[in-house]
Amino acid sequence: MRNILLSLSFDGTNYCGWQIQPNGDTVQQRIQDACSLITGENVTVTGCSRTDSGVHANNFCCTFRTVKEMSCEKMIYALNGNLPDDIAIKSCREVPESFHPRYDCTKKEYIYRIWNSRIKNPFEYTHSLQYKRQLDAELLNEAAKKFIGTHDFKGFCSAGSSVQSTVRTIYDASVTRYGDMVVFTVCGNGFLYNMVRIMVGTLLMIAEGKTDKNDFEEIILSGDREKAGITVPAKGLFLNKVYYGGEFFG
Amino acid sequence: MRNILLSLSFDGTNYCGWQIQPNGDTVQQRIQDACSLITGENVTVTGCSRTDSGVHANNFCCTFRTVKEMSCEKMIYALNGNLPDDIAIKSCREVPESFHPRYDCTKKEYIYRIWNSRIKNPFEYTHSLQYKRQLDAELLNEAAKKFIGTHDFKGFCSAGSSVQSTVRTIYDASVTRYGDMVVFTVCGNGFLYNMVRIMVGTLLMIAEGKTDKNDFEEIILSGDREKAGITVPAKGLFLNKVYYGGEFFG
Repeated sequence: MRNILLSLSFDGTNYCGWQIQPNGDTVQQRIQDACSLITGENVTVTGCSRTDSGVHANNFCCTFRTVKEMSCEKMIYALNGNLPDDIAIKSCREVPESFHPRYDCTKKEYIYRIWNSRIKNPFEYTHSLQYKRQLDAELLNEAAKKFIGTHDFKGFCSAGSSVQSTVRTIYDASVTRYGDMVVFTVCGNGFLYNMVRIMVGTLLMIAEGKTDKNDFEEIILSGDREKAGITVPAKGLFLNKVYYGGEFFG
Repeated sequence: MRNILLSLSFDGTNYCGWQIQPNGDTVQQRIQDACSLITGENVTVTGCSRTDSGVHANNFCCTFRTVKEMSCEKMIYALNGNLPDDIAIKSCREVPESFHPRYDCTKKEYIYRIWNSRIKNPFEYTHSLQYKRQLDAELLNEAAKKFIGTHDFKGFCSAGSSVQSTVRTIYDASVTRYGDMVVFTVCGNGFLYNMVRIMVGTLLMIAEGKTDKNDFEEIILSGDREKAGITVPAKGLFLNKVYYGGEFFG
């Protein structure tokens, strides 16, 4: 049995997230249908993580097993030909039978895009959060650095999650301005449910004068969801990179 | 009567172009409805040009007349609050009564975006044409320079147009690569029906080996629609800048 690793990008606007569910169009279902069609087998696809409704991916990884003899190169084009315009297979590689896209993932990078202008952007409204008040990206960047390290991120987790440990290691976190677009980038060994969106909501508390960067460490250490910020909308969030054994696959 | 000049940007994907028509959603209708609502008057909006269904604008200009006393600053926010997410008013200015957004326009700049990769881009498929074969942007740039000057562009005009003269002056034309995105930029005193899209179709004939850059002048001079290239799809086209008296308003 061949174990095939795919990297893909998708615009999540029209999907109920990655994971198959009974009453909604999902990315996993679309990939599974395309894989089944090109192999002629009843394929099951396993993803590197779940993503919420409306969340996008510049890179997302998944695997499926097949006996079909088809080159990885050919598979990319066959799959893309059977997927809608908002989902693209970017690369394909055969991996060992034991490889698992979630358990073998060593780190992930997310970005969150904020359109920082009083004027809306007709080309970005499904791919960013509009925030009208002028943001001090350098100040937010300094605050974001407080996320770095191994912490109990209990306060940065939405209800409904059932993980055993809420301790995660953040390797890097930053805020950068590109014109009117302000981008939060965070890389870690794992993320709790809604963790990145709550991180951004907490950064925006600084912009709103509800806290300052010196309180940031305290908010993190408190483990108190009430002290952290709101969960910002899904549409600005992108899974950006997925790493296996130190290497980015995309 | 105040004469108000607006600049706006819009994603044309969901519109049947700018101009009001009986059986379709148009940008002009949306703007007119918003202007009527905020002024309480029965407003007519006049645009700087028509745009086809699916064509976008980074900047488009239009005017309307009103007796309403409202600052231009306030008008921007009032209009944006009454427009859908894919249309944004960017700036607003009071102009002389005699000002006409089409007749007073001195030059316009269009861009056409080509996603030049074998892999589709889920975030760009409504804002670019995918072209899989690798393009030589430098070669296309050299060919594009042949458009510059005052020529009879009869061969670069779709049937259905009823203009008196097909002579237009192109001030600048270029092709630039930004990663996998190849962008054609063209600035002129006016454009015939589908002219930019046929220019791009003709540039792509070089990529397809159907012509070379030395034939370009001949194709232009021939005035023969048959010799020029196809009309490429609307979705890659953006009205980028509109000038009045040497000044870009946006």
